[in-house]
Amino acid sequence: MKKLINNPTNVVDEMIEGYVKAFPQYVKQLPENKRSLVTAKETRQGKVGVLIGGGSGHEPAFMGYVGDGMADGVAVGNIFASPPPDPIVEATRAIDKGAGVVYVYGNYAGDVMNFGMAAELADLEYGTSVGMVLVTDDVASAPKEESHKRRGIAGEFFVTKAAGAAADKGYDLEEVVRVAKKANDYTRTMGVGLTPCSLPQTGKPSFELEENEMEIGLGHHGEPGIEKGELQQADQVADRLVADILADMPLHAGDKVAVLVNGLGSTTRMELYIMFRRVEQILSKKGIEIHRSYVGDYSTSLEMGGCSVSLLKLDDELTEFIDHPADCPMYVQR
Amino acid sequence: MKKLINNPTNVVDEMIEGYVKAFPQYVKQLPENKRSLVTAKETRQGKVGVLIGGGSGHEPAFMGYVGDGMADGVAVGNIFASPPPDPIVEATRAIDKGAGVVYVYGNYAGDVMNFGMAAELADLEYGTSVGMVLVTDDVASAPKEESHKRRGIAGEFFVTKAAGAAADKGYDLEEVVRVAKKANDYTRTMGVGLTPCSLPQTGKPSFELEENEMEIGLGHHGEPGIEKGELQQADQVADRLVADILADMPLHAGDKVAVLVNGLGSTTRMELYIMFRRVEQILSKKGIEIHRSYVGDYSTSLEMGGCSVSLLKLDDELTEFIDHPADCPMYVQR
Repeated sequence: MKKLINNPTNVVDEMIEGYVKAFPQYVKQLPENKRSLVTAKETRQGKVGVLIGGGSGHEPAFMGYVGDGMADGVAVGNIFASPPPDPIVEATRAIDKGAGVVYVYGNYAGDVMNFGMAAELADLEYGTSVGMVLVTDDVASAPKEESHKRRGIAGEFFVTKAAGAAADKGYDLEEVVRVAKKANDYTRTMGVGLTPCSLPQTGKPSFELEENEMEIGLGHHGEPGIEKGELQQADQVADRLVADILADMPLHAGDKVAVLVNGLGSTTRMELYIMFRRVEQILSKKGIEIHRSYVGDYSTSLEMGGCSVSLLKLDDELTEFIDHPADCPMYVQR
Repeated sequence: MKKLINNPTNVVDEMIEGYVKAFPQYVKQLPENKRSLVTAKETRQGKVGVLIGGGSGHEPAFMGYVGDGMADGVAVGNIFASPPPDPIVEATRAIDKGAGVVYVYGNYAGDVMNFGMAAELADLEYGTSVGMVLVTDDVASAPKEESHKRRGIAGEFFVTKAAGAAADKGYDLEEVVRVAKKANDYTRTMGVGLTPCSLPQTGKPSFELEENEMEIGLGHHGEPGIEKGELQQADQVADRLVADILADMPLHAGDKVAVLVNGLGSTTRMELYIMFRRVEQILSKKGIEIHRSYVGDYSTSLEMGGCSVSLLKLDDELTEFIDHPADCPMYVQR
């Protein structure tokens, strides 16, 4: 598979270099660790820091979400691989303004281990209090009774948004953690994969799907989904994704949600809008109000084909956080 | 090629329907013509209207750029086909606040004919004064001495931004036209194609490229470029694109530019940041200052693979327009 890259071993470092050069008013690399990026703006003392991160290949996640009202720092791993503790600890130290730091990250073994170790190290070495928020929005990745085993995918955007808004509003560490966990508890995502991506090092497809096949629940790194079958029309696919979400998190007439239709990489915005059209029809028919919509590439899997639908159930508190302004290179909300 | 669509003949209407449902606070369809979208916000009397449009398949262009500080309306054509005069006239009528309307559109035979006819009809039927701004940023599409024959591609974003800002600042029709034409005169784009897209109706690739081949100067609808050759590394490709731009529009130490690295559809942001990295190195070495950077999918060709680099040379006046805030579904600038 063709890629506009130089030496495949340098893609992550060159990507970061390009990103920081493109948006110097937003982000800077730490001199101690080039995989640690923090906001370039002055953060006020006493504000809780929000730290995100994970493997590369999901751009604009995660580094695109460092900015006002969102995250203060990010630790960047290799492609589809967790960052080690070092860049996490360095970023933690840089964004600790005396009120502690909240880690928001997806539920993957490597991330759980490395963010966990980093939290211990940050406490031991710098006395920083760290709150942990694990994102587990992927309905397809484990049954409801084992929802703590679920992976984190596109819904992490909502959790980051809630944590960033709460921190920006001056909430303390415990409260930012509470709000972010609530956003995770109220978020569900279901995805569908159509075509594989390839890692720059190998150039080989990450999984196989037949020419007219799709896979429901396919993971963001090509983890097996729950059902392979013939590619269906957009309306049928949307019906299936929303049905699985609602079976897991029932919504009723009068409920209010935020909707994210997320592209996995090579899926056109035309297709995403067509998918959104059906999602809106389903929700509207049930009397569920869409408070805010997000349609585009928010968390990709390199050039994978497909999309996901995330619903965040909103109460008054979460609505306030979702409506809070944000200003990042990859997401601006006035 | 797999797509998340329903009946291929309905893709454009379903896409528009989804788009308007996703962003009702920004855009609305006109009851007179469902291919005419206008801003959902109240526009003040006496403000010059800015109208954009063209074929579908370039999303988020063009409809994603209707909003505060950008365009007031858009006419949406079929995939890769100009909208007919009707939706253009209807949108013109809706956004005319007594100060006339400026059309910003790419230099393609169909668009030239249809926007031209629409301008005459709007004048005849409603007495609306229309100013015309043809975008001709694609260096590869005609030699310098025939630059008026060049096609409009991703640089149209800069021209729309300038026109939208000037209109928002209260400039009159003649002045908005002058500013937008100046932005076009100061913009150059060079692109590279790696992989084809396919039209929903046919499902067939729009052109052929060998597995290790790229095409410099490939058009946004698959129009032949100026050179096919072996896929090179990102740095070499960036060197070539920028060299061709600078040969056409010389820049010198101390000059200031805005840079847009635009993805054509399936190219990852990782690759776009790597491309930007090199563009920044080249400009920085020459002492050219990058005032503002844009990296992402601003004008696509369905799921085509590849990217383009646009440079807008900035003087004080254009800097002011580029820095002007904007608030559209697909582009927000604080």
